[in-house]
Amino acid sequence: MSPTESLQVTERSQFRRHPRLGHHDRAIVNQILDEALVVQVGFVIENQPFVIPMGYGREGDRLYLHGATTSRMLKSLEQGVDICVSATLLDGIVIARSLFHHAMNYRSVVLFGQATLVEGEAAKMQALKVLSEHITPGQWAYARTPNPQEVKGTTVLSFPIAEGSAKIRSGGPNDSAADYALPVWAGQLPLKLTSGTPIPDAKLAAEITLPENLTHYQRGA
Amino acid sequence: MSPTESLQVTERSQFRRHPRLGHHDRAIVNQILDEALVVQVGFVIENQPFVIPMGYGREGDRLYLHGATTSRMLKSLEQGVDICVSATLLDGIVIARSLFHHAMNYRSVVLFGQATLVEGEAAKMQALKVLSEHITPGQWAYARTPNPQEVKGTTVLSFPIAEGSAKIRSGGPNDSAADYALPVWAGQLPLKLTSGTPIPDAKLAAEITLPENLTHYQRGA
Repeated sequence: MSPTESLQVTERSQFRRHPRLGHHDRAIVNQILDEALVVQVGFVIENQPFVIPMGYGREGDRLYLHGATTSRMLKSLEQGVDICVSATLLDGIVIARSLFHHAMNYRSVVLFGQATLVEGEAAKMQALKVLSEHITPGQWAYARTPNPQEVKGTTVLSFPIAEGSAKIRSGGPNDSAADYALPVWAGQLPLKLTSGTPIPDAKLAAEITLPENLTHYQRGA
Repeated sequence: MSPTESLQVTERSQFRRHPRLGHHDRAIVNQILDEALVVQVGFVIENQPFVIPMGYGREGDRLYLHGATTSRMLKSLEQGVDICVSATLLDGIVIARSLFHHAMNYRSVVLFGQATLVEGEAAKMQALKVLSEHITPGQWAYARTPNPQEVKGTTVLSFPIAEGSAKIRSGGPNDSAADYALPVWAGQLPLKLTSGTPIPDAKLAAEITLPENLTHYQRGA
């Protein structure tokens, strides 16, 4: 079954405010999910919301989640409850002539659905490969892959990219007409998550050099 | 009433996994909240979790929230429900000799409580100033401040920093003993949200130069 080109529009995923910023196109949603490093996973236990940052990876129309899989999260999932997955990329600060029109440039995705446990060693290994390649492309072929005991000790969840939406704000400020006459600077301060100089482990042998896939690490274009 | 030095430890804010990464110290929580630009706000409507990114600012032991205040969020707040506020700073990727020990370096805060509407023009102006100075220090004195109509049209929420915790992971990998013999690079790839060259608005008069407070914009140290 090939995924549809658009995500499902439902009561909980329709746009209420700023519909011009909203997108249901799968290609746009996927691009944001492929650039972000963590998602914020929201779930409910006894009417109390929890929001937990988690690492993830995407394979087709599924997300694999993994990381801070607390017991609360697992207990919640066992009950088959709905979760909300949110990813946010900050692209810049919009500087306007008035404070009222200051804004952020961002690309965000919010998804709704239920996660299921990934079971069986082969399926878990494939999901762990997707997770690993999402964060650090090339490492699966370079570093030591998980052994059966490590696979067993890892919890991986699968979540459908089916219902939800993306929101994108880009470009400069939209000031009120009268404010354009003010002697105030306006424009954008671009923001980007950038990587610095790699720091070798204190126990690293001197002859081991940084592999090609970790040089010039960057997210997005 | 001066805030306590530690946040309240409750059933929902105690540490279940990796207690050595956890902190309840208010100073650590505040430092993370002062560096992050958005929080992810989780709330529940009819047992469905929603997670929405929002701009915010901190004043003492309160957060002011603002931004994508959807009607769903407001409806939820009118009912006095609990919300969860999550902030996450990504500091780096931990590269281990085995994929199992790859990790992220991060600083995160999770808070629990109920938000209330900020009412009255003076209180709202003060909250808006805190919000503005959090994202763009110096702009409150430089750009045009909100007029009464703009204040009226803005929704600001106040949220207590009282119950919750911070989590911090830093440093290099913790590989399994046998893996230190592998000829595999290990260490850290530092990550930082950095600002690029400011982009002037297309309608900006040529003689208006970037104010001092917006040059070398950066978050954290």
